[in-house]
Amino acid sequence: LLNSVRPQVLPRYVWWLLEDAPHGDVTSEAVVPEDAEVEAHVIVEDDSVAACMDEALELITMAGLKARATVKDGEWVRAGTAAIIIEGNARRALLIERTLLNMLTYCFSVATATKEMVSRARSVNPRVRVAATRKAPPGLLHLAKKAVVAGGGDTHRLSLSHMILIKDNHLRIVNDLREAVMKARERAGFTMKVEVEVESPEDAVLAAEAGADIVMLDNMSPEEVRRAVKLLEERGLRGKVIVEASGGITAENVRKYAAAGVDVISSGSITMNPGYRRVKMEIVKVLWGGHP
Amino acid sequence: LLNSVRPQVLPRYVWWLLEDAPHGDVTSEAVVPEDAEVEAHVIVEDDSVAACMDEALELITMAGLKARATVKDGEWVRAGTAAIIIEGNARRALLIERTLLNMLTYCFSVATATKEMVSRARSVNPRVRVAATRKAPPGLLHLAKKAVVAGGGDTHRLSLSHMILIKDNHLRIVNDLREAVMKARERAGFTMKVEVEVESPEDAVLAAEAGADIVMLDNMSPEEVRRAVKLLEERGLRGKVIVEASGGITAENVRKYAAAGVDVISSGSITMNPGYRRVKMEIVKVLWGGHP
Amino acid sequence: LLNSVRPQVLPRYVWWLLEDAPHGDVTSEAVVPEDAEVEAHVIVEDDSVAACMDEALELITMAGLKARATVKDGEWVRAGTAAIIIEGNARRALLIERTLLNMLTYCFSVATATKEMVSRARSVNPRVRVAATRKAPPGLLHLAKKAVVAGGGDTHRLSLSHMILIKDNHLRIVNDLREAVMKARERAGFTMKVEVEVESPEDAVLAAEAGADIVMLDNMSPEEVRRAVKLLEERGLRGKVIVEASGGITAENVRKYAAAGVDVISSGSITMNPGYRRVKMEIVKVLWGGHP
Amino acid sequence: LLNSVRPQVLPRYVWWLLEDAPHGDVTSEAVVPEDAEVEAHVIVEDDSVAACMDEALELITMAGLKARATVKDGEWVRAGTAAIIIEGNARRALLIERTLLNMLTYCFSVATATKEMVSRARSVNPRVRVAATRKAPPGLLHLAKKAVVAGGGDTHRLSLSHMILIKDNHLRIVNDLREAVMKARERAGFTMKVEVEVESPEDAVLAAEAGADIVMLDNMSPEEVRRAVKLLEERGLRGKVIVEASGGITAENVRKYAAAGVDVISSGSITMNPGYRRVKMEIVKVLWGGHP
Amino acid sequence: LLNSVRPQVLPRYVWWLLEDAPHGDVTSEAVVPEDAEVEAHVIVEDDSVAACMDEALELITMAGLKARATVKDGEWVRAGTAAIIIEGNARRALLIERTLLNMLTYCFSVATATKEMVSRARSVNPRVRVAATRKAPPGLLHLAKKAVVAGGGDTHRLSLSHMILIKDNHLRIVNDLREAVMKARERAGFTMKVEVEVESPEDAVLAAEAGADIVMLDNMSPEEVRRAVKLLEERGLRGKVIVEASGGITAENVRKYAAAGVDVISSGSITMNPGYRRVKMEIVKVLWGGHP
Amino acid sequence: LLNSVRPQVLPRYVWWLLEDAPHGDVTSEAVVPEDAEVEAHVIVEDDSVAACMDEALELITMAGLKARATVKDGEWVRAGTAAIIIEGNARRALLIERTLLNMLTYCFSVATATKEMVSRARSVNPRVRVAATRKAPPGLLHLAKKAVVAGGGDTHRLSLSHMILIKDNHLRIVNDLREAVMKARERAGFTMKVEVEVESPEDAVLAAEAGADIVMLDNMSPEEVRRAVKLLEERGLRGKVIVEASGGITAENVRKYAAAGVDVISSGSITMNPGYRRVKMEIVKVLWGGHP
Repeated sequence: LLNSVRPQVLPRYVWWLLEDAPHGDVTSEAVVPEDAEVEAHVIVEDDSVAACMDEALELITMAGLKARATVKDGEWVRAGTAAIIIEGNARRALLIERTLLNMLTYCFSVATATKEMVSRARSVNPRVRVAATRKAPPGLLHLAKKAVVAGGGDTHRLSLSHMILIKDNHLRIVNDLREAVMKARERAGFTMKVEVEVESPEDAVLAAEAGADIVMLDNMSPEEVRRAVKLLEERGLRGKVIVEASGGITAENVRKYAAAGVDVISSGSITMNPGYRRVKMEIVKVLWGGHP
Repeated sequence: LLNSVRPQVLPRYVWWLLEDAPHGDVTSEAVVPEDAEVEAHVIVEDDSVAACMDEALELITMAGLKARATVKDGEWVRAGTAAIIIEGNARRALLIERTLLNMLTYCFSVATATKEMVSRARSVNPRVRVAATRKAPPGLLHLAKKAVVAGGGDTHRLSLSHMILIKDNHLRIVNDLREAVMKARERAGFTMKVEVEVESPEDAVLAAEAGADIVMLDNMSPEEVRRAVKLLEERGLRGKVIVEASGGITAENVRKYAAAGVDVISSGSITMNPGYRRVKMEIVKVLWGGHP
Repeated sequence: LLNSVRPQVLPRYVWWLLEDAPHGDVTSEAVVPEDAEVEAHVIVEDDSVAACMDEALELITMAGLKARATVKDGEWVRAGTAAIIIEGNARRALLIERTLLNMLTYCFSVATATKEMVSRARSVNPRVRVAATRKAPPGLLHLAKKAVVAGGGDTHRLSLSHMILIKDNHLRIVNDLREAVMKARERAGFTMKVEVEVESPEDAVLAAEAGADIVMLDNMSPEEVRRAVKLLEERGLRGKVIVEASGGITAENVRKYAAAGVDVISSGSITMNPGYRRVKMEIVKVLWGGHP
Repeated sequence: LLNSVRPQVLPRYVWWLLEDAPHGDVTSEAVVPEDAEVEAHVIVEDDSVAACMDEALELITMAGLKARATVKDGEWVRAGTAAIIIEGNARRALLIERTLLNMLTYCFSVATATKEMVSRARSVNPRVRVAATRKAPPGLLHLAKKAVVAGGGDTHRLSLSHMILIKDNHLRIVNDLREAVMKARERAGFTMKVEVEVESPEDAVLAAEAGADIVMLDNMSPEEVRRAVKLLEERGLRGKVIVEASGGITAENVRKYAAAGVDVISSGSITMNPGYRRVKMEIVKVLWGGHP
Repeated sequence: LLNSVRPQVLPRYVWWLLEDAPHGDVTSEAVVPEDAEVEAHVIVEDDSVAACMDEALELITMAGLKARATVKDGEWVRAGTAAIIIEGNARRALLIERTLLNMLTYCFSVATATKEMVSRARSVNPRVRVAATRKAPPGLLHLAKKAVVAGGGDTHRLSLSHMILIKDNHLRIVNDLREAVMKARERAGFTMKVEVEVESPEDAVLAAEAGADIVMLDNMSPEEVRRAVKLLEERGLRGKVIVEASGGITAENVRKYAAAGVDVISSGSITMNPGYRRVKMEIVKVLWGGHP
Repeated sequence: LLNSVRPQVLPRYVWWLLEDAPHGDVTSEAVVPEDAEVEAHVIVEDDSVAACMDEALELITMAGLKARATVKDGEWVRAGTAAIIIEGNARRALLIERTLLNMLTYCFSVATATKEMVSRARSVNPRVRVAATRKAPPGLLHLAKKAVVAGGGDTHRLSLSHMILIKDNHLRIVNDLREAVMKARERAGFTMKVEVEVESPEDAVLAAEAGADIVMLDNMSPEEVRRAVKLLEERGLRGKVIVEASGGITAENVRKYAAAGVDVISSGSITMNPGYRRVKMEIVKVLWGGHP
């Protein structure tokens, strides 16, 4: 059932395949001989950073096919590279083809977008981290985080269960930032960090004073970010908190935010709108049972 | 369990929420009073075409919240519009917030990208259809198709079980286009159409002669497409087949393909890389139990 | 999720509906207005015994429709009777129509076939019981047993977990009927009865002597059955065991077996081949949103 | 998890087995040695057409047993034939025995009933197709369709998601056949065929004129069917539509309908009431661990 | 999917692992090389009775690891014994470690507590049975029963579906013990035993006279139990019913109840509060890929 | 489906009920009238701390019953208190009775054991935290953590996905504590804390120097713990790390560990062996349909 250390993705594969083939693959059943065996290559069509290779191999294995990867998570892969070599029953390979490619396209696109943002950010601030948010097509959060890591990024919190993050919607209910942080500190387990999203440099100071481990500067301009960092330094709080900038940060403006002296830059677009690295599957050899 | 006509999405909601909150929402549990009641608005942040509104309402209802929509699938929504008004327990609203927004962002982006491609294509060919492919983030095929319809597009086949579509990988096994089409005709049920993907105008003619209902001109230039259409006309086959152009068609070049005289243009990018229409949730009123 | 005392059927409804509508009901979505409300009747087309009415109501309720039954499990229903009155959204009613009717057809057919066999058997032996086997279309064992009860029959064991039943295949491994029964007696919990399937009157005696609670006379003629009963009486064992006849018993020959003096007659055909009591759904009124 | 190209049946096997053995097989656990190994044969007891052999092999394999089939889907199998040879742990074989046989009995019965109806129909009209409906015990639709194909029949639409089929209940809401067909044409994707169920020869003409791809003559006598076909011919519409007869067609009267000149004859009884082809499992050899 | 005769536990393993690793094991992913291979031992830390060994092996196998057991269900295992030897990928072993140990701890504790109660009870009444109730941590009923059997106990009914057991709550509704038993007798299948829970020796007689197969003396003192047994003997009913004592029976007082002449003693504490037999996993050898 | 903010427990309820009633509740179906309505009380039988009240209410609600709680999580409840008042269909109440009580017994026992350990520990060290481990019956981790919080304890990490915790088994592979911590620091996201389990006071210093956020002193005597704390103070590291004591800490010796100056004491027994707080359900009134 598992054959893997990834209980978190396997049950989904069944749902993905059921969605794409609720009553099987009528084309293969009509034209492909039942016992045809093929060698198929998964070919990367745009230069990209590889990601989620193990998850891909598992999907293929689950379908009773043999597969080996020629690249590893995090590697740059040139357009034209056969990243995975598959061997086995033709109908099975065709059944999973689209699901497999959809998964790889998403993961490779995320990893590539991440890597690009990381290199831009680090070109001006070598210690800065680029982190994912929880913005991703629904059901793909886990793959998104894996791909971000492959691209050199940071997962940020993996889910709502992972860390306290007090945001504007919470403050609209609780109304007092200081009290919210203190309540969180007290109620949160000792294993959990507490982060607070703030809208102004002054609130950043407030949050740090109240005991936040991480302060997220939300939707500020690079200048405001810089001012917030400075204010924290002046109050002697800079060493006590991790400072994260978030909101509207793109490949275009990331350098300015990095240069403003934050520790972490988080970006929704790397997982929600990472572009489109194409991947295709090609049957390169009919090993058995094809038609001459 | 259902409360809806959509058995195809409901079981997924549980998986989506489990992924994003495997052990609950530690932040709300720490800082939001258990009995706080709020009014929250789902606000569209970029002009977009609405899509999957019913699916969104169901997710909200499933969580025990009340919701009503102010817009309908297919409508253009201005930035700033509150598209859904939610009322109920604050913790529940915060638990589903990100999953809901991720779903709406994806659906609205797909619908908007589709509508844009449809208007460009129809500006030169008023009867042409823009159709989706099966390229979409895994597990989101059904929502993708719904959003394409909201944007004025055509679903194309809903899954591998839906229609015969003979592609290059099949032909690498079967080797004879004509034989493949005839076998498909014979084995496919009378309810199924048969489509063939071809690489040249000549093969388009072959496929049509062999009895294909639909011919997909794959990765051809607009000129080749035009030539294929002409060839089919010359052979008296144009009226007998639906002609689809596919492969590398984007908002930029779609007019040329539309002008080439095809019936259908399909695009992977509208569902795999539809851009990023932002949607946010804002708590606008604390109805009960907040802190003064 | 449940809304019922039947956890054993509810998760299946989701699978049944997913199989029949993996991507929704394309017809209703195309031609039926989204907000149309109807009254629909489930009409019995052949005289039958009602069964599984609660299970039917749950399926309808799960889809967000209102329903009430006019008949109860076990009642004879005349052809033409509207057994269930449904009110609600038209698309939802059409989505579940076929699944609902398929379920009712199966259950009504089983209950009717059971009732017929019961009355024939009891016409000659008023205390005899007619029992189901585990022969039923896969996944329908629970409904089958419910329908048998509605028809006046006995469920027999509900599953492999329910009672010890030593059959010929076990004896081919264990080789010694006496030893098998004694081992079963010793290992089985005190809550479990032990039944043994035997091929001859002599083995029936052996089984009873070894301590079986129930002896199943398998594939014997009515005469052999009579001889087995007599043999058990002669040895003073008749009062200690329940005697069941099984194998090839049909509505045609059931009287002879009943007359042979057994306590229980079991039949595979009442659940595996119960005939076909037709049931249909008819929209009798458009309450809202139809076209004039 | 899959080991197969059939995501559509595998998750169900778990549910089927859970229903029949929610707490294991108490009999085998009591009397069969844990490590006993056997050879078991699945023996066909009535002449039948084989069907769903791959699905059967998968169920057996899932339970950790080895199996090979001696017959193929669509073949006539003589009573007495060992259609599947199983080897492995005795307890496992006994655990799946009944589920396996229930599945095979259903599939073989459907395939056989289909083949009989096909040969009768084709004896008078060699090009006619016999098609399944969606009438089948709930949860068995997919297996039913596979078995119909094995028997030489046509699947008809695989589910509600597959094709537009406008029926009487839709028309009770929409009220105008012509408008319904046109709306369907417009809203349905270009990949979907549109079928209309009609109650009179005149409506058949109307449906064909409105653009239906398929016209279903519902519950008409063979004479009416003949008249409908003639009317369509006279209007020059016969070549443009596929004509299907449906409703109350049985092995007894199928020849008359076939002779009436339709393209397709559909039958609910071949999947809902296919008779009862018996199949049994017999342990033929104890390979290891039995009792002497 | 199965690889076993235990459909009843396998789907749960996925849920257990998802709960403990919803997004994988972040520690191993950070510090353990992906391809490290280890030998790990599951070591029993307190003298205990082994139980659920097969279920443990299956969990390990499901994770793609090799395993063999050195002990069998029911055996006494000395502290320090390596009960299972595991070989394979280090990350996989670490992923399942805690789930595996939690399962074994529970099962070994139950089996040991059972065995202790069995030996005490049998020291004064060699034929008495010690039986489990349905009291167990939710979701663990099946494992609890297996472990009780390993400890020499009796499963009692496996679930609510297994046997009629009329308790005080039923009698509060039905109000008449005699009528309840008779109704049960009549409605229950012939395969089911009927047990009645009674609060006084007089009711025990009533229940036996009404036809109960088993009488449960609930929350009586040993003296009352003795009196109930005597009363049944005097009325000539002792041979017709199985007598069970239940309620507040612990290792301390079990001998008195056993000596009172009952057939069965049931205990909630052996499954709900069985103590805590510790089990740990130790990596004893790094076969490949560790750090020197 | 949800009706709650707890996607993490709801799907399990279905499995729990399926395990305990795979084919329904045969007793209620035999003796309790279908439409009987009752008021039932969930009564606490031993003084205990309430926990998981919301989860309990949800299970009851899921079954279509009304319920209200009279106590809150964390409150001391006296023996005899009716903690939940249920109203509704009698059969439904009886169906969930045991599952509900099993859950509450487990949660109340854990909360009570936790509260007792917390008060003992805090009697000597008012700031010390008592934390859970991941030792709990499988599948109950989430409820265990909730109950620990109700008892005033700390959840510790919620799952393997939550925090880095380097243990002895990791070090057997990696071999170098310092390197392991640094690798973890580097690879772990900025949201994650890093904890290290150490076997000696010297290793505690090493871990703190290497940058661990938390140091777990494993299986040390109170004296060794004291020495480790002192050593950390001498090196100026005490303020930089949270110090946790773990291994063999029970209600008996917890004061000594608390007095040794640690921040956190973790205990497996509070979740794996929490004792047995009894809870029962009593039908107190028959509102409708009982027998006079």
